[in-house]
Amino acid sequence: MSTETKQSVPNASAHAWEGFAVGLWQDEINTRDFIQRNYTEYVGNADFLSGASSATNELMVRLNDLFEVEHEHSGVLAMENDVPSTLTSHQPGYLIQSAEKIVGLQTDQPLKQAFMPFCGIRMAESALESNGYETNPLMHTVFNQWRKTHNQGVFDAYTPEMILARKNKILTGLPDAYGRGRIIGDYRRVALYGIERLMQEKARDWENVGAGAMTESVIRLREEIKEQHRALEELKTMAASYGFDISLPAKTAQEAIQWLYFGYLGAIKAQNGAAMSIGRISTFLDIYLERDLKRGLIDENDAQELIDHLVMKLRMVRFARTPEYNDLFSGFPIWATLSVGGMSSDGRSLVTKTDFRFLSTLSTMGPSPEPNITVLWSSRAPEGFKQYAAKVAEESHALQFENEQLLRDYWGFDDVGIACCVSATVIGKNMQFFGARANLAKALLYAINGGIDEKSGVQVGPKLRPLTGEYLNYEDVWAAYKSILDCLANLYVNTLNVIHYMHDKYAYEAVQLALMDSHLERTFATGIAGISQATDSLMAIKHGHVKVIRDVTGLATDYVPEHGFPTYGNDNLEADAMANQIIDYFMTQIRRQHFYREAKPTTSLLTITSNVVYGKATGNMPDGRRAGVPLSPGANPSYDDGHFLGEKHGLLASLNSVARLNYGNALDGISNTQIINPSALGKNQTEIVTNLCHVLDGYFNQGGYHLNVNVFDQSLLKDAQAHPEKYPNLTIRVSGYAVKFRDLTAEQQNDVMLRTAHAHLTV
Amino acid sequence: MSTETKQSVPNASAHAWEGFAVGLWQDEINTRDFIQRNYTEYVGNADFLSGASSATNELMVRLNDLFEVEHEHSGVLAMENDVPSTLTSHQPGYLIQSAEKIVGLQTDQPLKQAFMPFCGIRMAESALESNGYETNPLMHTVFNQWRKTHNQGVFDAYTPEMILARKNKILTGLPDAYGRGRIIGDYRRVALYGIERLMQEKARDWENVGAGAMTESVIRLREEIKEQHRALEELKTMAASYGFDISLPAKTAQEAIQWLYFGYLGAIKAQNGAAMSIGRISTFLDIYLERDLKRGLIDENDAQELIDHLVMKLRMVRFARTPEYNDLFSGFPIWATLSVGGMSSDGRSLVTKTDFRFLSTLSTMGPSPEPNITVLWSSRAPEGFKQYAAKVAEESHALQFENEQLLRDYWGFDDVGIACCVSATVIGKNMQFFGARANLAKALLYAINGGIDEKSGVQVGPKLRPLTGEYLNYEDVWAAYKSILDCLANLYVNTLNVIHYMHDKYAYEAVQLALMDSHLERTFATGIAGISQATDSLMAIKHGHVKVIRDVTGLATDYVPEHGFPTYGNDNLEADAMANQIIDYFMTQIRRQHFYREAKPTTSLLTITSNVVYGKATGNMPDGRRAGVPLSPGANPSYDDGHFLGEKHGLLASLNSVARLNYGNALDGISNTQIINPSALGKNQTEIVTNLCHVLDGYFNQGGYHLNVNVFDQSLLKDAQAHPEKYPNLTIRVSGYAVKFRDLTAEQQNDVMLRTAHAHLTV
Repeated sequence: MSTETKQSVPNASAHAWEGFAVGLWQDEINTRDFIQRNYTEYVGNADFLSGASSATNELMVRLNDLFEVEHEHSGVLAMENDVPSTLTSHQPGYLIQSAEKIVGLQTDQPLKQAFMPFCGIRMAESALESNGYETNPLMHTVFNQWRKTHNQGVFDAYTPEMILARKNKILTGLPDAYGRGRIIGDYRRVALYGIERLMQEKARDWENVGAGAMTESVIRLREEIKEQHRALEELKTMAASYGFDISLPAKTAQEAIQWLYFGYLGAIKAQNGAAMSIGRISTFLDIYLERDLKRGLIDENDAQELIDHLVMKLRMVRFARTPEYNDLFSGFPIWATLSVGGMSSDGRSLVTKTDFRFLSTLSTMGPSPEPNITVLWSSRAPEGFKQYAAKVAEESHALQFENEQLLRDYWGFDDVGIACCVSATVIGKNMQFFGARANLAKALLYAINGGIDEKSGVQVGPKLRPLTGEYLNYEDVWAAYKSILDCLANLYVNTLNVIHYMHDKYAYEAVQLALMDSHLERTFATGIAGISQATDSLMAIKHGHVKVIRDVTGLATDYVPEHGFPTYGNDNLEADAMANQIIDYFMTQIRRQHFYREAKPTTSLLTITSNVVYGKATGNMPDGRRAGVPLSPGANPSYDDGHFLGEKHGLLASLNSVARLNYGNALDGISNTQIINPSALGKNQTEIVTNLCHVLDGYFNQGGYHLNVNVFDQSLLKDAQAHPEKYPNLTIRVSGYAVKFRDLTAEQQNDVMLRTAHAHLTV
Repeated sequence: MSTETKQSVPNASAHAWEGFAVGLWQDEINTRDFIQRNYTEYVGNADFLSGASSATNELMVRLNDLFEVEHEHSGVLAMENDVPSTLTSHQPGYLIQSAEKIVGLQTDQPLKQAFMPFCGIRMAESALESNGYETNPLMHTVFNQWRKTHNQGVFDAYTPEMILARKNKILTGLPDAYGRGRIIGDYRRVALYGIERLMQEKARDWENVGAGAMTESVIRLREEIKEQHRALEELKTMAASYGFDISLPAKTAQEAIQWLYFGYLGAIKAQNGAAMSIGRISTFLDIYLERDLKRGLIDENDAQELIDHLVMKLRMVRFARTPEYNDLFSGFPIWATLSVGGMSSDGRSLVTKTDFRFLSTLSTMGPSPEPNITVLWSSRAPEGFKQYAAKVAEESHALQFENEQLLRDYWGFDDVGIACCVSATVIGKNMQFFGARANLAKALLYAINGGIDEKSGVQVGPKLRPLTGEYLNYEDVWAAYKSILDCLANLYVNTLNVIHYMHDKYAYEAVQLALMDSHLERTFATGIAGISQATDSLMAIKHGHVKVIRDVTGLATDYVPEHGFPTYGNDNLEADAMANQIIDYFMTQIRRQHFYREAKPTTSLLTITSNVVYGKATGNMPDGRRAGVPLSPGANPSYDDGHFLGEKHGLLASLNSVARLNYGNALDGISNTQIINPSALGKNQTEIVTNLCHVLDGYFNQGGYHLNVNVFDQSLLKDAQAHPEKYPNLTIRVSGYAVKFRDLTAEQQNDVMLRTAHAHLTV
């Protein structure tokens, strides 16, 4: 592991790079520079697309059969229980080897779930046992006696306060027993540079970490880079088992896709992360496809087939999960988030034919939750692309949209991808410490009850003086809320400090990080649940003359707003400002804390489907929301309850309110999920698609960050709930991901069905 | 793991503590306070001692038989290769169960060496393989693929410079593949408090680590205390397998010794440390023996038998070692260092009958290198004890002496014990990061040759301008030497920073640390080899008109001092000041560095037997010393070479020089080993013993720190080398430990035989 001089371009690379415009990317690892110098913007429409090949259809038939069997077995086709998953733990596996243009499975057979104990042996065992498998007793010994796991480490350091907050669900979903995920390796590097060059660069980085003093952070980074170097070697071995030598750069589009996928495959063999996103690959891969098309090596059918086969692989990613995890994030999401579209900082769009090709998989291969396709939207993007993306969204209910202008404004770069649902990350340069979320609706109840949990009656928060008046006074409540948020921010960040320290120690993501810069920016992601309930409750307290109902112990258990009050989601400036006030105060308190590895604090307004579990754990609210009812997902306004509560002024008013939330205070993303009745958009598909484009342009141009778009009538869901067999592949966007409707719990199906389905743009 | 209130004395403790003077020690973990309030100083002579019991003799016969078989098999009777050693990995083992008053073995049979891979699987495998055993392939997989070891971690972070310095032996003996050791658990706590109370205190400490911010050091300490808590639980389980419940305090002397030994046994099952010392236990145990004697539960025979059986266990400690390790530290030392004697800060001596009882084991059970008995000498100690210790030293050649006044002056406490050879440690409050040593003789040659190694010709040190004159100029050499020492200090401390970071991460000493305070003082021990060669060479350069001989490449390869010059070890003020000047400069550079966990830097003048290996790696020196000849061990002056070099003025002049070294600059200890011809001390044993006491009084009163005392004629060693079968148990003190002469390599035997054997006190 030594390189004295900078790597000159080897002959083999020169051959692989033939036809590419030269640049900085040859002298240093710089995928963006390669893209910028080589990509071909596509400004046309979707007419060039071809359908699925016969091989693709053959594979999809087989895959759909396997999906059916898997569905019949509660989402588990087979599980490994004998050997921990590593890059080289399994023999090669295939779907139909003769038909696959892109190969590689997580284990030795399709959909078989690997055994991943490094984040927590108990979780791995529970996943096995809840599905009727036994853990190999040797594995139990190894990971209990000789090899400590992340989960054990975390609980060795957690304070009783942390455990209490976790148990009472003021903090939920913490990655303390599973992988934190949300780290996107720059998998493109494998294709562009080959493993040898990447290893040389890591060797050079390793040599140049630390001067003068071996501080702990220098030692840690040196060890980490060595682990990355080792992981690259293992990637090579893994690829070799499939018959490929990925030492050198990919020479064709097929190799490029295969090399890139091997990088990702290594990551999902090594880590069961909370979100294993693949990043922004379409513009990059298009360069290879264009070159091969120009050379006459492939035609459009071939190009589409290669993309289809990659996408198929992403549909097959599986992780062993526990019932508790499935409650929180229903429908087995793995967030193989794939970002398409976007704009270059020089004003061109980054749209290529391959962005179309990825979108078209949802038509030709049927809708699917994974990969979690994310369109980086710009009103300045080519019209053909906008129209096509809107059309696919309308037909598949499987797309989400994010504001590419905001990404560049706040992250400074145009090579940004989305991890998980809404988390921006500069590809290859930035990693996130994922931190789940705090329930700020519940925190408001703590403020009223002096830190006592309204469900358990236990003192969870600080022992503040409870508010005792018959009616709630806004000034008193806001002051108490601030005190609660002060403590909660401290507890929350410290909990995450423990988690990320232990994750680095016991479950370091060597593969993903091997495909990123050695010196990274790190964000420290916190999250907020219940923003609309907290906002509306404070608005109720301020304007609604809220009477408090207390039990015999004096605990406030219910609230009656006696007057109406403005609420969030109705384009009301005061209500929207209240939401921003809460976020700003919380984020200010978050920023005060000490952060592991000097990571940069962020927060998100994103619950994924945990809004249901959070709601279950949250008592009656001053805005009139009933105990146990799901919180609004992400940044969504409350649903219209027919009384004081919720969004009553149509889609545009709702979008205006959400767009008003300050992204600068919530850099981990602001999630918004909408169901729009087709009739609200138009009378036929052309009208619907055109108007959807207008809605997206308008929303994003006024600063909206993200939109999950579902265009259907709620009656569709009623029918699907009643007759699931009729809708095996019905996919919808829930908060942060797409999911097959039949895979949601009944509770979550009901939550979705209760959501406002906007029948009108304005009311 | 929760304690809201302080532990009140439980009834069971009250019973166990009956008859003890009450004190602070009951309210907090404070063994010293217990000792101070309860011990009975003994000012008489050795007449009270009884001999070995029949059980003791029976056991010793068996043990000596096993030792013989072990010796015939190159020091290895049996090895475990199947399961990593933990506190509970093995069934109970016995020597002769019916005869043993104190039980407990490292594995399931006497002298069988455990498999200890946590510090390094390669080392563990090499130890097995070099002795003809195979590693279980599963263990190979576990510790290469799933459970990283200390050794792997270290080499992942080492810089090429570190590896080069290590390879060229400017740094040697670094604990990067074996346990750092030198950590003394306060094993007395097990006896005095029982495990339950200790666990409660650890739980309370754990609860109270960290406020406000979860920094990395807070998280680390919380995890460590939890690991300690877990280790205490395991200690209980281990003891239960031998039929003992050590939850509660020991009720009798036999229990006290057994409980204490279980604590130590846990440590040596869990760690193969560079030195697994047992600390200062005699005064403590005497309190229990006195109480039982007073109660008529035991008589002196019983008391001696209990001590004998404990000592026998300490003679049986074994660790699997590699050939390389044995080259460095010959004769299988494990440094079960046991400190006896000493003074209380209130002016009393800490000498008890049990201090005599430990010494007498060397007579009744024959001499033995282990435990490494260390007498903390004071001229104010009771005359009877001084005489007896001197007599045992003279007869056994198995004792070392340390200056107890210096210990209290510099460490501030009287409950100080010796770890390894000369490293002081405040029992239960202080741990050391062991750091082996740098070769300052070789460093001087680097100064002359511009950082090029005189043996390998490789640029190891900084590329300084080499000194090119025909004769060496002192000012030039000193300036260049300082530059070399600057760089060496930085490299050395950084190397140790890596080692200790990784040791904490991959091979944390939970058992030992469970028996210490949670908030520890840490010392960062560096070490110096070759001080006398460096000193004498600088004296030669200054006064001896040293001509340089260079090879064709210009590398200085030999030196000819043309005049005589004063040398260290002859009571010459200038030479002795030169030694202090080197140490002071080096230590000043050491102190400039960054230290892991803010440990306090120290250094030692101690080579153990590595002086031979260091000497082999060091070229010709300007003082006339020939290449390859062993360096002087520790702080010893050079031997008289019959020409300019070495100590020529007898024992007292030599001792005066060593005593002049500033302990404040070498707080990790200054080792001095002497062979005194009996004729130098007197005509008969009484005279010899009396004069030896005078020598020790004089040496220590003028600030000498340590003395290994060998009183014999060199002809004894010649005979033993020629006829090893006649001397199976001949034990001598080498630098830092005692060893059976027959277990030394021929090279090391020769080194010892070449040493100055003082035939006169003064010349």
